[in-house]
Amino acid sequence: MGEALCFIFALLNDKFSVANSAILLIHCPDQAGLVALVTEFVHKNRGNILNLDQHVDHHLRHFFMRIEWDMTDFLIPQEKINDYFSTLIGAAHQMKWTLQFTERKPRMALFVSKASHCLYDILQRYGTGEFDCEIPLIVSNHEQLRYIAERFEIPFHYLPITRETKAAQESKTIALLEEQDVDFVVLARYMQILSDDFCRHFAHRVINIHHSFLPAFKGARPYHSAFNRGVKLIGATSHYVTADLDEGPIIAQDVERVSHRHGIEDLKRIGKDVEKRVLSRAIYLQLQHRILPFGNRTVIFN
Amino acid sequence: MGEALCFIFALLNDKFSVANSAILLIHCPDQAGLVALVTEFVHKNRGNILNLDQHVDHHLRHFFMRIEWDMTDFLIPQEKINDYFSTLIGAAHQMKWTLQFTERKPRMALFVSKASHCLYDILQRYGTGEFDCEIPLIVSNHEQLRYIAERFEIPFHYLPITRETKAAQESKTIALLEEQDVDFVVLARYMQILSDDFCRHFAHRVINIHHSFLPAFKGARPYHSAFNRGVKLIGATSHYVTADLDEGPIIAQDVERVSHRHGIEDLKRIGKDVEKRVLSRAIYLQLQHRILPFGNRTVIFN
Amino acid sequence: MGEALCFIFALLNDKFSVANSAILLIHCPDQAGLVALVTEFVHKNRGNILNLDQHVDHHLRHFFMRIEWDMTDFLIPQEKINDYFSTLIGAAHQMKWTLQFTERKPRMALFVSKASHCLYDILQRYGTGEFDCEIPLIVSNHEQLRYIAERFEIPFHYLPITRETKAAQESKTIALLEEQDVDFVVLARYMQILSDDFCRHFAHRVINIHHSFLPAFKGARPYHSAFNRGVKLIGATSHYVTADLDEGPIIAQDVERVSHRHGIEDLKRIGKDVEKRVLSRAIYLQLQHRILPFGNRTVIFN
Amino acid sequence: MGEALCFIFALLNDKFSVANSAILLIHCPDQAGLVALVTEFVHKNRGNILNLDQHVDHHLRHFFMRIEWDMTDFLIPQEKINDYFSTLIGAAHQMKWTLQFTERKPRMALFVSKASHCLYDILQRYGTGEFDCEIPLIVSNHEQLRYIAERFEIPFHYLPITRETKAAQESKTIALLEEQDVDFVVLARYMQILSDDFCRHFAHRVINIHHSFLPAFKGARPYHSAFNRGVKLIGATSHYVTADLDEGPIIAQDVERVSHRHGIEDLKRIGKDVEKRVLSRAIYLQLQHRILPFGNRTVIFN
Repeated sequence: MGEALCFIFALLNDKFSVANSAILLIHCPDQAGLVALVTEFVHKNRGNILNLDQHVDHHLRHFFMRIEWDMTDFLIPQEKINDYFSTLIGAAHQMKWTLQFTERKPRMALFVSKASHCLYDILQRYGTGEFDCEIPLIVSNHEQLRYIAERFEIPFHYLPITRETKAAQESKTIALLEEQDVDFVVLARYMQILSDDFCRHFAHRVINIHHSFLPAFKGARPYHSAFNRGVKLIGATSHYVTADLDEGPIIAQDVERVSHRHGIEDLKRIGKDVEKRVLSRAIYLQLQHRILPFGNRTVIFN
Repeated sequence: MGEALCFIFALLNDKFSVANSAILLIHCPDQAGLVALVTEFVHKNRGNILNLDQHVDHHLRHFFMRIEWDMTDFLIPQEKINDYFSTLIGAAHQMKWTLQFTERKPRMALFVSKASHCLYDILQRYGTGEFDCEIPLIVSNHEQLRYIAERFEIPFHYLPITRETKAAQESKTIALLEEQDVDFVVLARYMQILSDDFCRHFAHRVINIHHSFLPAFKGARPYHSAFNRGVKLIGATSHYVTADLDEGPIIAQDVERVSHRHGIEDLKRIGKDVEKRVLSRAIYLQLQHRILPFGNRTVIFN
Repeated sequence: MGEALCFIFALLNDKFSVANSAILLIHCPDQAGLVALVTEFVHKNRGNILNLDQHVDHHLRHFFMRIEWDMTDFLIPQEKINDYFSTLIGAAHQMKWTLQFTERKPRMALFVSKASHCLYDILQRYGTGEFDCEIPLIVSNHEQLRYIAERFEIPFHYLPITRETKAAQESKTIALLEEQDVDFVVLARYMQILSDDFCRHFAHRVINIHHSFLPAFKGARPYHSAFNRGVKLIGATSHYVTADLDEGPIIAQDVERVSHRHGIEDLKRIGKDVEKRVLSRAIYLQLQHRILPFGNRTVIFN
Repeated sequence: MGEALCFIFALLNDKFSVANSAILLIHCPDQAGLVALVTEFVHKNRGNILNLDQHVDHHLRHFFMRIEWDMTDFLIPQEKINDYFSTLIGAAHQMKWTLQFTERKPRMALFVSKASHCLYDILQRYGTGEFDCEIPLIVSNHEQLRYIAERFEIPFHYLPITRETKAAQESKTIALLEEQDVDFVVLARYMQILSDDFCRHFAHRVINIHHSFLPAFKGARPYHSAFNRGVKLIGATSHYVTADLDEGPIIAQDVERVSHRHGIEDLKRIGKDVEKRVLSRAIYLQLQHRILPFGNRTVIFN
């Protein structure tokens, strides 16, 4: 291939991108004509549809949709879209929706304790641009991983927790998150249970990684339980945190084969790999606004 | 759960279905407004959209779409849809499309030689209704599997092939397929290479299973080659047949782990499992009109 | 490759086999020198070791071993090996062991209800020689699958069950199994819970397939539970049946990815594929005497 | 669980370990009695066998074995084992073997270019003790990743390469490796082809990661080729480097599913995850002396 051709190929090759696009995640009771309604709204106002995906849950007779359009020539001003959409379509069809613009980089906070594997994996992806976001802070109840935060030059907040200080620490944490305008929180092997209040406050905005293929082995020490049960697969699950421990809507899961040869330490070692990729997959989906939680399930548009 | 509730659950549980729906698979050069155009065409003519999926290949600037709508109240008569769609939308946008109706059961022919595993797997799925189609005939260049056809009461045509009779046999086969109004052919480990003419005649209508993860190990004896290369994964590939051997558009692929402990016979044994599920996955997609071949690639709407 | 060479290759290619080999599965408290002791016993008596695999569970300080040797020149008569081994090695080291000879084809009984997918899969493998065993009988509490048994010319015993007849039916079944000298039973989606007595009587001789990745979704309707929990993977588990429902030692497990697009019927359809291969993997291991159950876990020598 | 019990559990839980063990990797033409011979050698000299695994390739009539024993009470001095083993067993049976002692930490060198994902993954595992080795140096033909080396406080050697300086650079590199007593080299996405001399000099001591499931997509730009071929799986392969590009013995492989939705940039992104885990799996096996290369294949004892 000649130099010139290589160059052209590289150009084409670049991820297709527009300066700013709008992403609408919608759900509502199913009825005829919804797709046409929404696409017409976008099209008539000169929004070029870049992606459209929809799903109907025929059991629940419920409709889900993700639509992304180029904002370049869109007639409705960005800050008024919610209002117009509500008036013209949303309210009449009992829709619930969120609207995001890709020009705004999502702001993600990381909560960690002592295990470094997920943190490193996330920061490496952040460092190379795979995760296109801001990470304004890392919160931890231990000091052990401060050095990693420093390596990546991210502010590290040490907020230790005892039974007595838990409430106060959470208040401080919430204040930090709001001060930093954080969009969502990732618990990267954070070994503390969040209060119900915190969970409600940040509903669908806190992603956890649990080191088992839920609903198997909820709670503490899942690798020990997996070993004792003699399973031939171990897994990991990323999910939104709710007040019910390890019961929130699942975003991603994966497994790896194990055998009798693997002791508990081996399960932990192998499991770390699964945890890393399952958590990072969830973060990637979140950053792309591809997750629509509904009840205890998620619709993943990908 | 009480009896009554169980009953209701079972009802809801039933696969959602309509008497007849139309499925349009479209592709054309990309431009703004295509999704809105097509959804409006369906919606204005009182077709309730059941499924919609679209894809834009930004490298090739090409647009792909699958749309399914309920025919119950659709205003345009079934036999005129192609014409109307062409006049109103298709021609002006250089679209190519196929239109299918779910009330027509697809008619699938099976070609086999001596290996029974894929044949059994297909017929079991057919027998239990997983494959919702007609199988009007099985063609073979050997007699060995006639007993299976008889067990399932499907006409079995023994058409042996020698170098001399190959052309005549193919003519006979084509006559049979046309007589039986066959929609597509599945080569379920059929150990004959089809002529270029046959391939062209049935372009995108012949699905083959190749026992390797293509493009590795094209051609004969892939398990021997896999053994000799010492790979740690073996695979299978289902693809549309083209005049270039094992080079047609890939529909589905899967792999299984192997190790040094596995001799060639083990690879064959393990490989059969992969072949069965990869071929059956392709058939399922074909029966649901979810495959859109384009150049040497496929868009799979699922 | 020339014809002659092909022929030679084919010969070499043949699965290596000896007329008769002995397979010893041993476990005992761990101590130094066990491997040397056993290999010396075989070697000194002119048994050529074909396969040897061992495992030490360092948590439990327990030793496991599988050793297979060619019986051709073995000095100890087949029927006296157990006795000699016990006297010379086994008793002194608190060993427990089973001894099998490959010249005896294992005799497997199949229990089925109405679902045909596992039954077909097993019989196809049996028919092509992948499962090298005898299948003297199929037992069912329903008549629906009789035609399949007839197609494969295997005696089919219809033994319907009501609450009142359950005990009597089990007695009849046990009588049949003993009359037919059955080595082990496969529950190929048999929808009846075996009595504790039956389970104890056939300990480690009844293999079940459960349609979830245990320990998740034990008991009835696992696909419904999986759907409701919104998991992104569904699985299947083959295990030895014990008196505790779905709690027996796990032999094999596998999973398949699913998404929000899959309704319960889709989960069932996709799950069938996983069930088939996970059950057949367990049967294959059982036929090769590669499973050593210990407590609630299994050591799989493969 | 009480505090005390937790403590005991933690103890048992600790990876079983001995101060020093010997690991012998042997291969030779197959014949009767080999396992007994070797185990007797170890046992008679008071070596407690910790692990034993063997394999016979019946096609090639070749024997492979890995045996590990506790050195605590072993009668033969460490430095004389090779000699004794050769005299008493090895020479007479045309054996080839390597002998390692676990008290010596393997010394691993990393070669990198510009991509950071594999490097980070390796260093994170090194930092947390998952990789129990020394990393005396990182070599690169670019400066870009120096900051990572510095973060982990590992000497970074920038050795740029032009066509003219290639030979000189390799000489310098070899000198460095020898000076640092390096056992093996890992090419963590090192974008340079090593000379034949280098490959021969470090035969079976250089591990590469190739970003495709070999033998598919050898050479440059495999993700572009994968995209153009329309594969539904992409993969990665770790292998020993030989003078034939991408043709060396395969150590580990894995794949990930992709679809038409994934452009080349997506394939690269998804592929990085596969590369990381496949390369790290190979390193782990190498550190545990579990890889026995033979011809163009590997026996992996795990």
